[in-house]
Amino acid sequence: MKTKDRIIQASCELFNQHGERAVTTNHIAAHLGISPGNLYYHFRNKEQIIRALFAQYESYLEEAYGPGEDDTPFGIMKRYLDGMFQGMWRFRFLYASLPEILARDPELHRRYLMAHERVLRTATDNLRALKAQGVMTIDEQYHLEFAEGIKMVVTFWISHLYTQALDEPITEQGVYQGVLQILALFHGYIAPKARPDFERLVAHYRALADTPA
Amino acid sequence: MKTKDRIIQASCELFNQHGERAVTTNHIAAHLGISPGNLYYHFRNKEQIIRALFAQYESYLEEAYGPGEDDTPFGIMKRYLDGMFQGMWRFRFLYASLPEILARDPELHRRYLMAHERVLRTATDNLRALKAQGVMTIDEQYHLEFAEGIKMVVTFWISHLYTQALDEPITEQGVYQGVLQILALFHGYIAPKARPDFERLVAHYRALADTPA
Repeated sequence: MKTKDRIIQASCELFNQHGERAVTTNHIAAHLGISPGNLYYHFRNKEQIIRALFAQYESYLEEAYGPGEDDTPFGIMKRYLDGMFQGMWRFRFLYASLPEILARDPELHRRYLMAHERVLRTATDNLRALKAQGVMTIDEQYHLEFAEGIKMVVTFWISHLYTQALDEPITEQGVYQGVLQILALFHGYIAPKARPDFERLVAHYRALADTPA
Repeated sequence: MKTKDRIIQASCELFNQHGERAVTTNHIAAHLGISPGNLYYHFRNKEQIIRALFAQYESYLEEAYGPGEDDTPFGIMKRYLDGMFQGMWRFRFLYASLPEILARDPELHRRYLMAHERVLRTATDNLRALKAQGVMTIDEQYHLEFAEGIKMVVTFWISHLYTQALDEPITEQGVYQGVLQILALFHGYIAPKARPDFERLVAHYRALADTPA
């Protein structure tokens, strides 16, 4: 792997483990066994590393929420939920300090808003599709607020976990609890005929959330 | 008003306006036209002021979510929603920096968890009552996740507003949008016969969210 990519990857790991605020470029260089000068050759400062990680976050959003090749309505839903889990887990440092990170970098903030407007548009498109397929029953006037509600859980679940147990590290099980929280939002809008499939989906994620670390 | 109370009140205003992180005890003293020594006589440091404000937050939770004298199911619901609005608006500095503030003070964190366990217990009791009165239809197994979902919107709505527009101050209208977001969570679980009353409640808060500042 190229040094530049190694820096990006190590930064993500260290940010996720210790929080973005606590990690300096010197920590990152020391962790990789390279000199600070070598790191500065690739990234002028920590903000540049965060921007590189944000580009990965944008690609992830594109991939997880873009058009897919799914067949069944619950195939689509599962793909989304798995995508949400991956994003929360992989970029948990970003979610843990989101308002802070965005406040420091207006360019990043602009990109964040653009990316999330796309996500919200895809989400409401999908709601409409699930409704057309008879899987969900939800008034058109509530589509946007429903999609916003899901986005809020995804965005703030990591912060929620931190407020619940500040000293404990975030676990995959804890993040799967967030997926269950999202499914609880769906529960009220699932059409009766689709309930058995829905309950199977809930059971699938409940098992993942209950698996001991 | 006593100097001690004036310090608490001015701190809350300044924290809400500029964010807790940006405000020092010197700012607070200057704002009140008192000497830093006078302020230190009442509060050794900023953490002590935050603890005093947190005690007000605890009283507010007790009052807003404790037993009330409401008559109709929608009277109960409206009282809660008004209480949620008041809390988000009055203590918006706390919600804006919650993980940070709790991480700095383990004693405050312990109190936060205790207070929120009480809130969650009252919320599930109320869900059960609304279900018994035929206003809501929600499976017992989803009660806790539903209550957690509402708590999440209340807790992170202010942070959500900041991620949407970092440079703009939080407005009462923006906070009422959060109340609408909470109502959107209820929407899927309102029994058909209770829909007209529910829609009136939504219209009431929509008008408050749309009122120009």
